[in-house]
Amino acid sequence: MIDLRSDTVTKPSDAMRRAAADAPVGDDVYRDDPSVNELEARAADLAGMEAALFVPSGTMGNQIAIRTHTDRGQELLCDEQAHVYKWELGGIPQLSGVQPRILDCGERCVPTPEQVEAGYVAEDLHRPGTGLLCLENTHNSRGGVAVPKKHLDAAAAAAHERDVPVHLDGARFLNACVALEEDPAAMTEHVDSVLFCLSKGLGAPVGSVLAGEAAFVDRARRIRKLFGGAMRQAGIIAAPGLESLDNVDRLAEDHEHARRLAEGLNAIEGLSAPTPDTNIVMVNSGGAGLTGEELSTACKARDVSFSPFGEHTCRLCTHLDVDGEDVETALDRIADAVESA
Amino acid sequence: MIDLRSDTVTKPSDAMRRAAADAPVGDDVYRDDPSVNELEARAADLAGMEAALFVPSGTMGNQIAIRTHTDRGQELLCDEQAHVYKWELGGIPQLSGVQPRILDCGERCVPTPEQVEAGYVAEDLHRPGTGLLCLENTHNSRGGVAVPKKHLDAAAAAAHERDVPVHLDGARFLNACVALEEDPAAMTEHVDSVLFCLSKGLGAPVGSVLAGEAAFVDRARRIRKLFGGAMRQAGIIAAPGLESLDNVDRLAEDHEHARRLAEGLNAIEGLSAPTPDTNIVMVNSGGAGLTGEELSTACKARDVSFSPFGEHTCRLCTHLDVDGEDVETALDRIADAVESA
Amino acid sequence: MIDLRSDTVTKPSDAMRRAAADAPVGDDVYRDDPSVNELEARAADLAGMEAALFVPSGTMGNQIAIRTHTDRGQELLCDEQAHVYKWELGGIPQLSGVQPRILDCGERCVPTPEQVEAGYVAEDLHRPGTGLLCLENTHNSRGGVAVPKKHLDAAAAAAHERDVPVHLDGARFLNACVALEEDPAAMTEHVDSVLFCLSKGLGAPVGSVLAGEAAFVDRARRIRKLFGGAMRQAGIIAAPGLESLDNVDRLAEDHEHARRLAEGLNAIEGLSAPTPDTNIVMVNSGGAGLTGEELSTACKARDVSFSPFGEHTCRLCTHLDVDGEDVETALDRIADAVESA
Amino acid sequence: MIDLRSDTVTKPSDAMRRAAADAPVGDDVYRDDPSVNELEARAADLAGMEAALFVPSGTMGNQIAIRTHTDRGQELLCDEQAHVYKWELGGIPQLSGVQPRILDCGERCVPTPEQVEAGYVAEDLHRPGTGLLCLENTHNSRGGVAVPKKHLDAAAAAAHERDVPVHLDGARFLNACVALEEDPAAMTEHVDSVLFCLSKGLGAPVGSVLAGEAAFVDRARRIRKLFGGAMRQAGIIAAPGLESLDNVDRLAEDHEHARRLAEGLNAIEGLSAPTPDTNIVMVNSGGAGLTGEELSTACKARDVSFSPFGEHTCRLCTHLDVDGEDVETALDRIADAVESA
Repeated sequence: MIDLRSDTVTKPSDAMRRAAADAPVGDDVYRDDPSVNELEARAADLAGMEAALFVPSGTMGNQIAIRTHTDRGQELLCDEQAHVYKWELGGIPQLSGVQPRILDCGERCVPTPEQVEAGYVAEDLHRPGTGLLCLENTHNSRGGVAVPKKHLDAAAAAAHERDVPVHLDGARFLNACVALEEDPAAMTEHVDSVLFCLSKGLGAPVGSVLAGEAAFVDRARRIRKLFGGAMRQAGIIAAPGLESLDNVDRLAEDHEHARRLAEGLNAIEGLSAPTPDTNIVMVNSGGAGLTGEELSTACKARDVSFSPFGEHTCRLCTHLDVDGEDVETALDRIADAVESA
Repeated sequence: MIDLRSDTVTKPSDAMRRAAADAPVGDDVYRDDPSVNELEARAADLAGMEAALFVPSGTMGNQIAIRTHTDRGQELLCDEQAHVYKWELGGIPQLSGVQPRILDCGERCVPTPEQVEAGYVAEDLHRPGTGLLCLENTHNSRGGVAVPKKHLDAAAAAAHERDVPVHLDGARFLNACVALEEDPAAMTEHVDSVLFCLSKGLGAPVGSVLAGEAAFVDRARRIRKLFGGAMRQAGIIAAPGLESLDNVDRLAEDHEHARRLAEGLNAIEGLSAPTPDTNIVMVNSGGAGLTGEELSTACKARDVSFSPFGEHTCRLCTHLDVDGEDVETALDRIADAVESA
Repeated sequence: MIDLRSDTVTKPSDAMRRAAADAPVGDDVYRDDPSVNELEARAADLAGMEAALFVPSGTMGNQIAIRTHTDRGQELLCDEQAHVYKWELGGIPQLSGVQPRILDCGERCVPTPEQVEAGYVAEDLHRPGTGLLCLENTHNSRGGVAVPKKHLDAAAAAAHERDVPVHLDGARFLNACVALEEDPAAMTEHVDSVLFCLSKGLGAPVGSVLAGEAAFVDRARRIRKLFGGAMRQAGIIAAPGLESLDNVDRLAEDHEHARRLAEGLNAIEGLSAPTPDTNIVMVNSGGAGLTGEELSTACKARDVSFSPFGEHTCRLCTHLDVDGEDVETALDRIADAVESA
Repeated sequence: MIDLRSDTVTKPSDAMRRAAADAPVGDDVYRDDPSVNELEARAADLAGMEAALFVPSGTMGNQIAIRTHTDRGQELLCDEQAHVYKWELGGIPQLSGVQPRILDCGERCVPTPEQVEAGYVAEDLHRPGTGLLCLENTHNSRGGVAVPKKHLDAAAAAAHERDVPVHLDGARFLNACVALEEDPAAMTEHVDSVLFCLSKGLGAPVGSVLAGEAAFVDRARRIRKLFGGAMRQAGIIAAPGLESLDNVDRLAEDHEHARRLAEGLNAIEGLSAPTPDTNIVMVNSGGAGLTGEELSTACKARDVSFSPFGEHTCRLCTHLDVDGEDVETALDRIADAVESA
C-alpha cells in the first residue's frame, strides 16, 4: 500500500527509535525531563521565540494557544477553511468560550489587512470584541499553500494595530519555511505564538510544540494540565522529536515529489491538480466523471490510499515514507483506476 | 427630540399602563400568573405554535432557543449579519458552547438551500456537526428586510432534510408579516421555534415571546430559569404585552413613515437610502462627505436622534411614537444638518 | 387559600399598581429610564454601595455577580445549603465555568474564618485558586436565619486577607437587617457586592438589585446583557420596586407572624418548629408520623398551601399578604390536618 | 537522591525502552497502530470491560469520562478529597459544565449508600440533577487507601438505583487490586468506567487507559480528539505501556516498602505515620515541631525528596525505582534531619 492519506502516517526512523530507547528522561510535570527540556529549548530557538511547550498533538497546541490568548466571550478571526475552526471539533467555543468570526481568505489563505480591519470588532456593551487573529501556514485545507511572510506580516500588523494578538497554526510551518526559503525564526517575526508539529512531515511518532514569549508559555503550561496534556517521562517521545528536527531540510524532497505527483495527475485524462507549494496535492476528478469518494475507493483497491476532500476532490500527501518510485507507481495505479472507471 | 434610534424606545400607551395597573397576577415561577398564561397562549396561537414562553428580552429568547435546540460543540448556521451572532455578546459560544458558522446571505438575508447544503457539517470524529439553522425576519442589520416566506421555507427545507432544526429570530417578525401580508401562523409553518418582541414596534414596555412545540417550550422554561429570566408577578408586564398585540396591524403605518423618510432622505443632496420594506431606514451619507458618526452628531444637535451603523451609514427606525409630522420635521432638520456640514 | 409557599407570591399593592401606571419610563438599554435610574440610585444608597443594577430575578443577580467577580476555572466558596449552589440549576459552572467548594456551615449559616482558611485554595499548576466567597443572609434553606453582621464580617475578613472578594446573596437581606436592627448600609460594610430582591417580602411584582462598586456594576451591566436581562421600559416594574422600598420596616410584622406561627405549630401534637429569626418557618412533622409531602398535601386540601422541604420538613413563609388572622386560621387548619391524619 | 515525591517519577526499564524501539506502530487517529490496539485490548480485558482508550494522562482520562457520562449542568458526586475535584484545575466545570457536589467520605474514602442517597439530586425546574458518581481507588489524598470492593459496590448500587452512572478514578487501581488481592476485572464489576495509569507504579513512561462499554469508549474517543489527546504513532509509548502490565504483581513490593517506611518513620521521635495500605505514606511531623514544608526541605538537603501535603504532613511514595536499601537509607537521613532540626 502506498499511503498518501496524510504525512501523519510517517513511521519513526531507526534513529528515532534508538533515540526513544536511549532518551534521558524524568517526570516532565516536575520539569525534570532533560529530553523534553532540550526539545523545548531547541524548538523555541528554531521558531525564534523565548520559550516552547511540548504537547501531544497539534490540536492541543492550537487550542491551548487560543485559550491562553483570549478571554471567554471574545471573537477569534480566522479563514473559513482554518483547521482550528473546521477540524478541531468546536474546541474554540467549547474549550475557550470564544466566538469564531470566519473570513473567506481565498487563495491568499490569510486575511488581507482590509479583512482584518473589517472583521475586527471593538468591545462594547453589545459586542464581544476581537481577542485573537489565527493564521495558518502552510494552509492545509487550501492545498498546503506556503503563505509568504509578507502576507503573514501584513495581517499581523493589522491585528497588532488593534491590540489583537496573533497565533500561527503552523502544523506544517516548516514545510512553509523550506518552500519559501525562509528562516523559521524570521518567519514568526510578527506573530505572538506558533504551533508546529513534529509528527507530520518531520516524521516524529508523536508530538507538537507551541512557542511564544516565556510568560505566555508559563500560562500555556497550566492550560496544558487542564486539558490533560501534561505527560510524565515524555522524553521517550521528545527524543525522537529532537531527531525529527534533522528532517527539516529534506522536506524539500516531499515538495519535489508532490510537484511530480501533480504533474503526473494532470497527465491523466479527466484529472486536474494545481501545482503544489509543498507536500499536499489536491486533485479534481470531476473531468473523469468521478466523485472524490469514487476515485479514492478505486485507488484503494489498487493499493494507493488517500482521502476524499470534498465532492470531486481528493487530498494526497507526500512524506518521509514515500519515495520517487512510490510516486511513479502511485501514478500508474491511479491512471489505471481512472481508465477502468 | 424626535427619537429614531430604535423602535425599542416606544413608550407604553395609556391602555398599556392601565393594563399594568389592573393586571390579574400571580407567581409565574409557579405558573400562577393569569396574565402571563394568557399572553403565552395568545402568542402561541398567533405564531401558530403549540406553546410559548414569556421572556424579559429578545436576546434571552434567542439564546434560550439556541441552547434548547443544540448540544454543546455543535455548529449553528446563520447569516454573518445575524443579530444572534453579531449583537448578543458571544452568547452562542458562552451560553451554549456552540460554534457559529456564518454565511454571507447578502440581500436575500437568509441562506439559499445551496448555502445550507454547503454550510452543513455532518458530525464525525473531527467535526462538530450542524445543530441549528438560525434565520432572521425582518433582518435588522440588513435594513429591516421582510424576507418572503418562500425563502424561509426553502432554507428550512434544506435544513430539515439534514435533520437540522430551524429557529427564527423574529424580533420584528410581525413587521415582516404585515409588510408581506402573511398570516404569522402561516409564516412559521416550516420553522421549529420563533422569537418575537413585544417591546419593539408593538410598543409594550418589556418582553418577548419564544414559541414552539410544547416539549420544546418545557425544556426552554428550564433554561430560562438557568439564565435568570424567570420572573414573579410578571403579569404586570405581560398585561401591557397583551395590549401590544392589538398594535400588529398599525405596524403598516410605521412602514409607510419609513418609506416617506427614505424618499425624503433621497431628496437631500449627498444622502441615499434604499426604499425600506418595513420600519428601518439605512441612509448612506458618503455622498455628503459625512461619516455616519458625523451625520448622527449633527442631527442630534438639531433634536433628531438616530444611530451610526457603519462607516458612512446610519440606521433610522420609525415606530409608534413617531407620526407623519415628526417624519417631515426630522427630514427638515436632517437636510439642515447636511447643508450646514 | 392561605398561601404560605413563599414570600414571592405577594401581590403588588394598589400603590405599586398606580406606580406602574404612572411610571416615567425610557429605554433602559440606553440608560434612559428615569424610574430604573432612580431605583438603582436609591438601592445603591440603601445598600451603602456606589452603584446598583436592576435585574429581572435574584438568580440572575447572583449569577451576574459570580461571573463578574471570577475568572473561569476558579473556585467559589459557599455553604452547602447556599441558594446559588443548590437552587440555581448549576449556573456556577455553566455560566461562569467556576467550581463550587461547599462547606457545611451548620447553624452559623456562613463559614467561620477557619473554614474560609481551610477552604481557600491558592492558585498553582494543579489547582484553580479561590475566586469568590459567597455568603447568604437571611439564609433560606437553613430556615430564614438572620446572620449577625459580625459573622459576615469575620468570614469576609478571612477572604479579603487572601484577596478573595465577597458576594452577599441577600435575596432576603432586608429581612435580616430588620430582624437584627442593623442599618443595611452598615450590614454590607465588608462585602464587595450584595443582591437583594424586591419581589419577595417587599411585595414588588418583579425584580432584584445587585449593588457594588461603580466599576463592578459597569462590568455587571455587560454580563446582564449577555444573560438576556437587559430590558427596555423597565420603569414599569422599577416604579413598583421603588414603592416596595417603603415596605422595609413592615417586614417586622412578617417576622412576628412567623414567630406566632412557629409557636402555634409547636402546640400541635407531633409537630415541632424552631423559633424563626425572620419570615421562614421550618416545621418537622416526624413526630406526627407524617412526611413533609403528606403534611403539605393534607393542608392543601384544607386551603393552606406550603412546600415540603425534605423528608419530614415543610417550609412556611409569612409575607405581606398574610395577616394575623390568616395565621390563626392556618394553624387551625393544620391542626385539623394533623389530627385527621 | 532518593526520590519519593511520587510514583510518577519511575524511569522506564530496559525492556520498556526496547519495546519503544521495536514497537509496531501506525497512525492511531486512523486506528492503525497495532501496539495501541493491543494495549487497549489487553487493558480492557484486564479491567473486565468491553473496550478501552489510550490517553496521555490520568487527568485526561478522568475528564473524558466525566464529559462522556454527563450532560452540561448536571451534578457530579465525589469525595471532597477526590483527585478529579481537587487536583485537576477545575476541569469538571470548565470542560464539562458540571457542578461538583463534594462529600466528606473520611477514612472510608468512598461515600456510603446513605451519602449517595443524601447527595443525590433529582432533576427539576430548579435543580440540575445528579449525572455521575465518581469514586477513587486507591485514594491518593487520603493516603493511598485501598478501598474494599464491597464499599465500591455499595456506593455504585446506590447510584445505579437512581440511574446515575459510576466512574472509578483508578489512577492507582492496580495497587488497590494487589493490596486487596482482588482480580481487577472483578473489582470493576459495578462501575461503568475505570481509568488507570500505566505511568505510575507500573513504571511506563507515559499514558493511562480509560475502559468501559464499547459505545462509551466510542464517544470518549471523540472527546479525546476535542481535548487534543489523539496522538499519531502512539505505539512508541503504548508498547512500553504493554510491558508495564507485567509489573502488576510486583506492586506488592512497593507496598511492603511503604509499610517498612511507615514503621521506620514511627520509630523516629516526633514523627507518626499510619500503616499504609499501598505505596503512599503520609507522615505527620507535628510532634517534632516541624511543618511539612520544613521536614521536606531538611530532607531534600540530605538527598531524600518528597512533598509537603498540608500543614504538618508530607506524602512519601514508594515505587519501582526504590528498593529496600533505599528505604533504609531514606529513614536514616530523615532521622538525621529531624534530630538536627
